[in-house]
Amino acid sequence: VTHAEAEFRSQPVEIITIGDELLLGFTIDTNGAYLGRKLAQIGFVVARRTSVGDDTAAIETAVREALLRTGAVITTGGLGPTTDDMSKSAVARVFGRELEIDQEHVRWMQERWRTRFGKEMPASNMAQAALPRGAKKLANNHGSAPGVFIEDKRGWVAMLPGVPREMRGMTDDTLVPLLESHVPQHGTIRSYTLRTVGVAESLLGDMLKDIELPAGMSLAYLPAPEGVDLRLTIRGSNASVADASLAQVGTAVRDTVGDAVYGEDDDDLAAIVLQLCRNGKHTIAVAESCTGGLLGARLTAIPGSSDVVLGGFIAYHNDVKREALGVSERDLRESGAVSEPVVRQMAAGAIERLGSTCALAITGVAGPTGGTPDKPVGTVWIASSVNCDMHSRRLSLIGDRDEIRRRSAQAALEMLRRRLM
Amino acid sequence: VTHAEAEFRSQPVEIITIGDELLLGFTIDTNGAYLGRKLAQIGFVVARRTSVGDDTAAIETAVREALLRTGAVITTGGLGPTTDDMSKSAVARVFGRELEIDQEHVRWMQERWRTRFGKEMPASNMAQAALPRGAKKLANNHGSAPGVFIEDKRGWVAMLPGVPREMRGMTDDTLVPLLESHVPQHGTIRSYTLRTVGVAESLLGDMLKDIELPAGMSLAYLPAPEGVDLRLTIRGSNASVADASLAQVGTAVRDTVGDAVYGEDDDDLAAIVLQLCRNGKHTIAVAESCTGGLLGARLTAIPGSSDVVLGGFIAYHNDVKREALGVSERDLRESGAVSEPVVRQMAAGAIERLGSTCALAITGVAGPTGGTPDKPVGTVWIASSVNCDMHSRRLSLIGDRDEIRRRSAQAALEMLRRRLM
Repeated sequence: VTHAEAEFRSQPVEIITIGDELLLGFTIDTNGAYLGRKLAQIGFVVARRTSVGDDTAAIETAVREALLRTGAVITTGGLGPTTDDMSKSAVARVFGRELEIDQEHVRWMQERWRTRFGKEMPASNMAQAALPRGAKKLANNHGSAPGVFIEDKRGWVAMLPGVPREMRGMTDDTLVPLLESHVPQHGTIRSYTLRTVGVAESLLGDMLKDIELPAGMSLAYLPAPEGVDLRLTIRGSNASVADASLAQVGTAVRDTVGDAVYGEDDDDLAAIVLQLCRNGKHTIAVAESCTGGLLGARLTAIPGSSDVVLGGFIAYHNDVKREALGVSERDLRESGAVSEPVVRQMAAGAIERLGSTCALAITGVAGPTGGTPDKPVGTVWIASSVNCDMHSRRLSLIGDRDEIRRRSAQAALEMLRRRLM
Repeated sequence: VTHAEAEFRSQPVEIITIGDELLLGFTIDTNGAYLGRKLAQIGFVVARRTSVGDDTAAIETAVREALLRTGAVITTGGLGPTTDDMSKSAVARVFGRELEIDQEHVRWMQERWRTRFGKEMPASNMAQAALPRGAKKLANNHGSAPGVFIEDKRGWVAMLPGVPREMRGMTDDTLVPLLESHVPQHGTIRSYTLRTVGVAESLLGDMLKDIELPAGMSLAYLPAPEGVDLRLTIRGSNASVADASLAQVGTAVRDTVGDAVYGEDDDDLAAIVLQLCRNGKHTIAVAESCTGGLLGARLTAIPGSSDVVLGGFIAYHNDVKREALGVSERDLRESGAVSEPVVRQMAAGAIERLGSTCALAITGVAGPTGGTPDKPVGTVWIASSVNCDMHSRRLSLIGDRDEIRRRSAQAALEMLRRRLM
C-alpha cells in the first residue's frame, strides 16, 4: 500500500534539526516528530527532514538548500544559552543580515532571573537576545530563548529552540497560529490510527492485503513493543470529505482485524482501562514482580488516575510476595515465583489488602539471566481479577529486558480491558 | 564552545531513515541516533542525517545525493513484509540494477515460519527475499528481512531494517564488522560524558565558561528532565592520545562542577545507587505516591537488581498510605498527603514492612490539577532512610506531569546516592 497519487499538492515544508548530539546519537530527535504531526494537521507536508551538526557552514548550507527546494523551513535547536549554539548566525548569513541584540528581550530576561531565581542573569544568556535584523521574535512561554521568524522573496525560515518542552510550547502557542494566518489554505492531511496489541505485523499485513484504499490514501504498519499501529493517511482539499473517507476505510480495517484493536489515534491502553473502570465504578490494585512498578507507572501517568487507582505492591523479592501479599510459601517453593498459583495469589492478595474491585498481577522472567529450559527468558504469568473472578494466562514474549517488561504491562492492561468491555 | 577545526577528517557517512511515519511524526527516529553512536566508535562521522517518506522517487533522490557527497550511505527502513516498503527498488535504480528473488532466503523464511510459528509463510513475506543484483545479503538474527550491501565506483550503500531491535542487531552483528574490514582506518572520534543532576544548563554554562579545550575538542550541554549531560568529544587519529586528552579535560570539568556530577557516559543513576547498595550490603524498599511505580521501575530496569531491591508500595490513595504503610490519619488530615511528616512515615512504613536497610519515599503534586497556592503543581516531598536515619527534602519542580514524575524519581535516587557515598 503506497502513496496513491494525491489529487492536489499540500504546502511542502522542510525541517532541519540542529545539534552534534543528534548526529553522534547522544540525543534522539523527538522534535522532528512533534513538528511533523502538528504541521500535517494544518495542511503542510514535511517533504524532508535533515539533521546537521553544530557547525555554522553545515547549518547554512542545509537551510539554503531547503529554502530553495520548498521556500518553507523550520529549524530546531541552537537558540540556547550555551556556546555550542550557532543557528542564528547561520540563518542570518543565509538572509545576508547582521545579528542585533534585542534590548527589550535583555531587560525581560534580567527581570525574569531576578524574580524567578533571585539572581543576576548570567552573562552567557545575552546571546539569546540576538536576532537577525528585520526578523520577528516568536514568544517562548516555557523558557528564555525567543524563536525567530525571517523571510524574503525566497520564502521563510522559522527557528525554534531545541529543548522539547520549549519547542512544543512555541509550536502550539506561536508558530501554528502564525503559519495558519501566513500561508494560503493548502488543503489538509488527515490520519486515523487503529492501535492493535497481540498480533504480529506480518499477520496483520496478510489479513489486510485485500483492503481497498481510495486515491490519496495510504496504510502504514507501525510496530512497537506495545503493539502494532495501523495508520491510514489521506491528503485532500476538504477536511470533512477526507474524514468521511477515513471513517469508511477505518471501519473496514477494524472489522477485518477484530479484537486486536484496542483503541484509535493517541489512545493509551492505560487511559482506556481507567475509563472502563470509571464507567463500571471499579477500582484497581496492582501486584508486580518482574515489571517492578512499570504497570503502576503506566496507570498513574494518566492525569486523574487517582479516582480509580488505589495503589499496589512491588513484590520483587519472594519474601515480599509472601509477607506483603500472602502468597503461599509452598507454592513459591513447588511451582516457583513465575507460576500460575503465585500470580493468582498476588492478585488476590492485592485485592484483600487494598479493597479494590479489580487487580492485575505480573510475575515473569524478564532476563537477561534467570531463564531455565522450562521457563526461558520471556516467560510471564499475568492475572486479572474483576469482582473476585480470577483469570490467568501464560505469555511467551520475545525481546530484551525492557521490551519484555513493556509487553508484559501492556498484555496485563489488555487482559483487563477485554474483561471490562 | 564549538568545533575547533579537527586536525584530520574522519570518514564521513550519511544516514537516510525512510518512512512516512517519520515525516508525519508518528514514529520517533531512534535508529539514526543508535547508528550515530556506533559509527563514531569506529571512526565514521555522520555528516548529515535525512528522513524521507515511503516514496520511491524521494528515496532514490536522497540516496543518489548522499552517495555523491560522501560515497558512504546507510539507510534504515523499507525492508519489511508490508507493502509500504520500497527502499530496495529505489536503491536498485540508483545502481541501475534489477531486483531478484534470493531463493535460498525464501527457503530459510519458509522453514522459519514452519518451525517457529507452525504456519505456512504468508505470501506477503516474499518481497523480503528480493535483492538488487550483485548485492551482498546482510544477516538478520532478529527478524526475517535481510539487509543489503551494494557498491560501485561511487561508493557503497548499506540498507538496514527499520524495526529498532532488528536494526540494532544487524548493526552490531554484521554492519560494524563489515565496515571495519571494508574501509581504511580513518582515526577515531572519542567522547566522554559527565552526567549532572540538579543544576540548570545556563548555570553550568557559566561555571564552565573558562574551561580551555584543546584543538579538535568540543563540549556540548544536553539537557533532559533527569539532568544535564556534559559531553566532551574529540576527533583524533590516535585513540589513546584522544582518551588521555579527554581524561584531562574531564577532570577539570568534574572539579569545576563538583557534587552535581553523579556519573559518566552511559551510567544510569539507578544502577549507581544499586552498586553503592551492594558495596554497603544494603537493601532497598520504595514507597511511591505521585510517581506511582516509576521509581521502582527505574530500579528494576537494571539487570540483576533483585539482590538489592526487595520491593515496595504504590501508595496512591490515602487509605493505602494509612493502611499499607501506617501513615497517621491525623498527619494526613492536618499536613496533607504532600507533606514532610507523611513522606517520612511512608519511608519508615516501607522499612518496617519489608525489612530493608534503606528506603525511598515520594509524595507530590504532579499535576496538571491538584495544585494549591501553598502547594502548587511541582511541589514534591522526598525522603530517604539509611540504617534508620531519615532525611527529607521539599522540591519545587517545573515541567508537565511526566517531567515532574521523572524529576522526582531522579531526585530521590540522587538523595540516596549522596548518602551512600
